Amino acid sequence: MKNKSKVLLGPGPTNIDDKVKIALSREPISHLDAEFFGVLDEITTSLREVFQTKNKIAFAVSGTGSSGMEMAMSNLVEPDDEVLILKNGEFGSRMENLALRLRARVSTLSVPWGESFDQLDVIKKISSLPQLKVVALVHAETSTGVLQDIDLIGNYLKNTDIVFLVDAVTSLSGVELKVDEWGIDVCFSGTQKCLSVPPGLSPITFNDKALMKINNRKTPNSSWYFDLKMITDYWGEDRVYHHTAPVNMLFALNEGLSICLEEGLTRRFKRHRDNGEYFFYRMKELGLESFVDVDKFRSLPMLKSVLIPAGINDSEMRMDLLLNHGIEIGGGLGPTKGKIWRFGLMGFNSSKELIDNLFDKLELYID
Amino acid sequence: MKNKSKVLLGPGPTNIDDKVKIALSREPISHLDAEFFGVLDEITTSLREVFQTKNKIAFAVSGTGSSGMEMAMSNLVEPDDEVLILKNGEFGSRMENLALRLRARVSTLSVPWGESFDQLDVIKKISSLPQLKVVALVHAETSTGVLQDIDLIGNYLKNTDIVFLVDAVTSLSGVELKVDEWGIDVCFSGTQKCLSVPPGLSPITFNDKALMKINNRKTPNSSWYFDLKMITDYWGEDRVYHHTAPVNMLFALNEGLSICLEEGLTRRFKRHRDNGEYFFYRMKELGLESFVDVDKFRSLPMLKSVLIPAGINDSEMRMDLLLNHGIEIGGGLGPTKGKIWRFGLMGFNSSKELIDNLFDKLELYID
Repeated sequence: MKNKSKVLLGPGPTNIDDKVKIALSREPISHLDAEFFGVLDEITTSLREVFQTKNKIAFAVSGTGSSGMEMAMSNLVEPDDEVLILKNGEFGSRMENLALRLRARVSTLSVPWGESFDQLDVIKKISSLPQLKVVALVHAETSTGVLQDIDLIGNYLKNTDIVFLVDAVTSLSGVELKVDEWGIDVCFSGTQKCLSVPPGLSPITFNDKALMKINNRKTPNSSWYFDLKMITDYWGEDRVYHHTAPVNMLFALNEGLSICLEEGLTRRFKRHRDNGEYFFYRMKELGLESFVDVDKFRSLPMLKSVLIPAGINDSEMRMDLLLNHGIEIGGGLGPTKGKIWRFGLMGFNSSKELIDNLFDKLELYID
Repeated sequence: MKNKSKVLLGPGPTNIDDKVKIALSREPISHLDAEFFGVLDEITTSLREVFQTKNKIAFAVSGTGSSGMEMAMSNLVEPDDEVLILKNGEFGSRMENLALRLRARVSTLSVPWGESFDQLDVIKKISSLPQLKVVALVHAETSTGVLQDIDLIGNYLKNTDIVFLVDAVTSLSGVELKVDEWGIDVCFSGTQKCLSVPPGLSPITFNDKALMKINNRKTPNSSWYFDLKMITDYWGEDRVYHHTAPVNMLFALNEGLSICLEEGLTRRFKRHRDNGEYFFYRMKELGLESFVDVDKFRSLPMLKSVLIPAGINDSEMRMDLLLNHGIEIGGGLGPTKGKIWRFGLMGFNSSKELIDNLFDKLELYID
């Protein structure tokens, strides 16, 4: 087993293209080499396309997806700022936790895990908070498999001074995400989901409205590592050294973005949508049930949450599937632990062939 | 040029062993796979050996070397804590900057760039600060090429409640560093220096004295990404998910540590020392002069700072050396910009052959 590839159908990382492996194993070059600055520029150009934005600032944080959350919030949120966090799963709660550490005044709006927010309810809540500075939500809740519509909220916030922060870790390049059109001011993601690059970087973009709030801070960011001004002095034209960029991971991201844009966003979204629907077809055929009530809420095309049928030992079954059939699937987090499975159909791994192979094996466990 | 390897003789990254490239390009597995937990355990065991410590806590931060600084300080330093930072180069100043962001009361002790501290002066300063909580210094100042002796300071601090934090980014595995014997409570490093793994991870270790201070905090760490308790719940026996570990970079680190320990620390230190001495021999032969006054201070074996001779255009020369001879060397930072070159002889790249090749090319530029 040790040398045979495992098929990763959990919530990330995914398997990766051979071209990404070649990029990963390139001989390193200096983070201050003009050749490497060319790589950074290519990444910025590709990220603008993937995020569907004209923002000047688009780069990859030198850390995993959660470091993108911290890059976004630690720059945007000052002590005593009023911040509204939408909570419908693990990753909303994580943003609340960070906002409290940053000494913000935090309001939350919650719905149960597995549900999404009615955008009009969110707008009503926003308009009830006159001192509000930042609204943060998760586009694709990886813990529950729910997609949150955000266009109306973003368009409402466009006409205010409130900054709109969106966690797109799982959605980027797998489902429509229009940063500029939807009025998103800061958006971050991860590499190990639909981009199918190993974990270790967090693509992120900031618009001018967000930069203005950051430039007007009265107190410094409590983080040096995530100080946006210093990092953009390196990614931008000045090329001032801040920290030694993770060069091999950035080679890999550049390759992953090229593969993504060669396919094209429209085709990539369709592939994820088609395979998400095919997954549901096979799921129902096997008599399994979606955790997300799809009559009321939108299920993520790239992450399917499924109720574990009675009589199955969750952790034993997943261990057996991994060890004897080489397939990794995800378990639940927090309140859904032992209650749901999470199936990732992301990027490189969003394919009918892998779904067929998965269900052929799942049938062995389910009567 | 684009596909030919460059020889990296700057302050890091270095070139890497083919085995590290193979590890980097392995098929990813899940960060929650038992097979991967085995990799984490191997890394911890190897790091204990490399750091020369029995500390339970030894792991790699999911970020570059500077993220190790932030992991160390953001956990150790609470608002209003009195902190002493020793400044003799860029990386001491960086720690001061971060301590201020963390709202510590910061005292500093400084000597000019290129010098190190007399340990007795440091102990005198420490004993003049009765409220002192943390002392932080840089073992190997990459900006100047100076080695700081620390054993007396560490042994003095052993008998106090003051926590001793050491930046060993450039020194780890290239020069003697005895975490336990020298009384170091928290020590962090980087992967792209003497370990010759690409940049992107920061090896770090904490002892019980440091953990006690962290466990007694009155306020939470302002960082979620760097919260030690949550990260050690993942690296330790509980395996609680915190963030998606950078799996491929950790495969590479595990391989780099194996290569290091196969050579053995004693032989590795000797190789760095011998090659550092050989560099000086060739340097003097060419009529060049060390920036560090070696009659008074200790020059780093793995990073040699050299005064740029009159009449040479620093940036043009380094560009030409890189483009026409495929050799990268480093320039100065801050006050030494345009005044010194920095030559890295680290890990994989600490070799007589590379030094000979370097000086054959340097001769072309120097009369």
